[in-house]
Amino acid sequence: KLEMELEAIEKGGYDHFMLKEIYEQPKSIKDTMRGRIHLDKGLIALGGIRDYERALANARRIIFVACGTSWHAGLVAEYLFEELTRIPVEVEYASEFRYRNPIIYDDDIVIAISQSGETADTLAALEIAKQKGATTLGICNVVGSTISRVTDAGAYTHAGPEIGVASTKAFTAQVTVATLMALHIAHFKGSINTSQFNRYLFEFQSIPDKVERVLEKAAESKVIAEIYKDATNALFLGRGINFPVALEGALKLKEISYIHAEGYPAAEMKHGPIALIDENMPVFVIANQGPSYKKVVSNIEEVKARSGKVIAIVTEGDKDVKDMADYSFEVPECDELFTPLLTVVPLQLISYHVAVMRGCNVDQPRNLAKSVTVE
Amino acid sequence: KLEMELEAIEKGGYDHFMLKEIYEQPKSIKDTMRGRIHLDKGLIALGGIRDYERALANARRIIFVACGTSWHAGLVAEYLFEELTRIPVEVEYASEFRYRNPIIYDDDIVIAISQSGETADTLAALEIAKQKGATTLGICNVVGSTISRVTDAGAYTHAGPEIGVASTKAFTAQVTVATLMALHIAHFKGSINTSQFNRYLFEFQSIPDKVERVLEKAAESKVIAEIYKDATNALFLGRGINFPVALEGALKLKEISYIHAEGYPAAEMKHGPIALIDENMPVFVIANQGPSYKKVVSNIEEVKARSGKVIAIVTEGDKDVKDMADYSFEVPECDELFTPLLTVVPLQLISYHVAVMRGCNVDQPRNLAKSVTVE
Repeated sequence: KLEMELEAIEKGGYDHFMLKEIYEQPKSIKDTMRGRIHLDKGLIALGGIRDYERALANARRIIFVACGTSWHAGLVAEYLFEELTRIPVEVEYASEFRYRNPIIYDDDIVIAISQSGETADTLAALEIAKQKGATTLGICNVVGSTISRVTDAGAYTHAGPEIGVASTKAFTAQVTVATLMALHIAHFKGSINTSQFNRYLFEFQSIPDKVERVLEKAAESKVIAEIYKDATNALFLGRGINFPVALEGALKLKEISYIHAEGYPAAEMKHGPIALIDENMPVFVIANQGPSYKKVVSNIEEVKARSGKVIAIVTEGDKDVKDMADYSFEVPECDELFTPLLTVVPLQLISYHVAVMRGCNVDQPRNLAKSVTVE
Repeated sequence: KLEMELEAIEKGGYDHFMLKEIYEQPKSIKDTMRGRIHLDKGLIALGGIRDYERALANARRIIFVACGTSWHAGLVAEYLFEELTRIPVEVEYASEFRYRNPIIYDDDIVIAISQSGETADTLAALEIAKQKGATTLGICNVVGSTISRVTDAGAYTHAGPEIGVASTKAFTAQVTVATLMALHIAHFKGSINTSQFNRYLFEFQSIPDKVERVLEKAAESKVIAEIYKDATNALFLGRGINFPVALEGALKLKEISYIHAEGYPAAEMKHGPIALIDENMPVFVIANQGPSYKKVVSNIEEVKARSGKVIAIVTEGDKDVKDMADYSFEVPECDELFTPLLTVVPLQLISYHVAVMRGCNVDQPRNLAKSVTVE
């Protein structure tokens, strides 16, 4: 066991922990699913929250509190829970929530997301939620961490130790747990029927293989990185459940390459940020096939009309966006609800390669700590 | 009457409409208050929503839908309504809301904010809210506009015609209406008592004079603009009710000067954006005296420790932040809930002067339309 743990915290042939952790995602997502998805019995088993199924299904609201990348996982969870369970969800910056005398009802469920389980602001937000009588749950990676101990219950991500300061496999594991919880509660509550549930389950367990397929095309991310490595700024656009992925893609680039990247819901661009676009501005657009595909296509047209450079994440076999974009990166087709687990991967890879090419310290970027245990 | 309207749409001695509109704010805020605040009778009269007072007071949730600057006004309104009325508030990008099969209950109130009253995404979001049975209200500036006609009721801003593409006086008028509504409903509902209500009312009606005092120091904003006009990037930080002001300050700079500026809740900085900070990065911080003052002070220390340049908006008489910051701009003291109407003004002025010094077309920035009537 010790040997296994040592191996996990070594680079195992990769140049950086971050790259190793990006490549571990098929395994870390599968580990997070393991023992929880039972296709044969048509059920999801989440032992940690078994006593809270009814409370979740009947919750007035579900409120996610988190910081940084975990906050982005919370935004993905908002789409998943609202769509599948029809329970209203709010996602709060932990640091804001704790200081604003938040409105909390005793039939609200507050879910903290934190890789380390020690994030100071998130912990403080949880304490307030507890004082106000809410049920609290945790989604943490580190077993026995403070947040996992102070919450009423929770479900761990099984991503293994994450060493790189820029979070990658912890994010996809958090999204995986949120998906399992949302599917399970939706089935329990009856907001999706058994045949829908089984269809989702069947498709969801194919995600690790699809992430593997994304990683097989990693060389393309290096080509894209080479072209845009000298950019001083970048925009990331997405819609719906891929809007938080745009935020996460921008955060990765910011954290490790010090390029000022910003994420936006694609349609908000015309209310201001479009003024920034010129021939020097790379615009990363998540343009997978899905309910907002046509809308994203017209957002891309707007960027191209202002001479912006478009790097698009598209679905395999895409034609329209590939014709318009300067570069594109294909990801396998899957249900819209599961796409963040695929679309985020090329953005992680591109950020990684850009940072390496710029000579940045990828695993320990300046000014940042892995676990923010101060306010 | 015609003569008055002509005057309103001329520049009246100012170089640009935007500057004129910034200077009109003491008047436009007062016009928006006029006939609505009755200090002598101790009441707020909002004729437009008279029939919906009870629905508002008993609302399960209040949901603001808006785009761009109006969305920032919605975020300010969230703090005002939650603090004063204790009703949970959500603020949605109209463009996202309309495409996501939103959860809406028939005891929810959906409030659209739009200067023009014609914003296509906001209008579409309203239609969905109506279909789902919610009560809909509007906060518009243009009388008889589409949104003001399709909503069940509403309250106009009386900002007068806004010609500059970058919204200024419409924003402060929207915040003024939201404040009046929140105070009125809180008093009606009893979540604040009569003596609190009267105290707020007394203080609120002094705001136009305080905005005038901010404008008297406009020359200082020109000094700051001169120093930072060549910046390629900027961060804007705020906490609590001034977090949306940070977003709005960043949007102004983006829209008219094409500098990549981004707003953040101050405490989130350490979860990523702090990696961007070096000696070339101006960081604008809203650091007025208030409940989060000490926390903001430590955020400023973090920025200074990384050699960032800090331009702080502080309360008159401030010492601690003024000692630390590279430049500071004082605004008069007032209750925390009303501070956005003061703190946003120096940010508008700085953006304006930076854009003029960079030779940008202030009133008609590239790529932007005044009223976004397309999707």
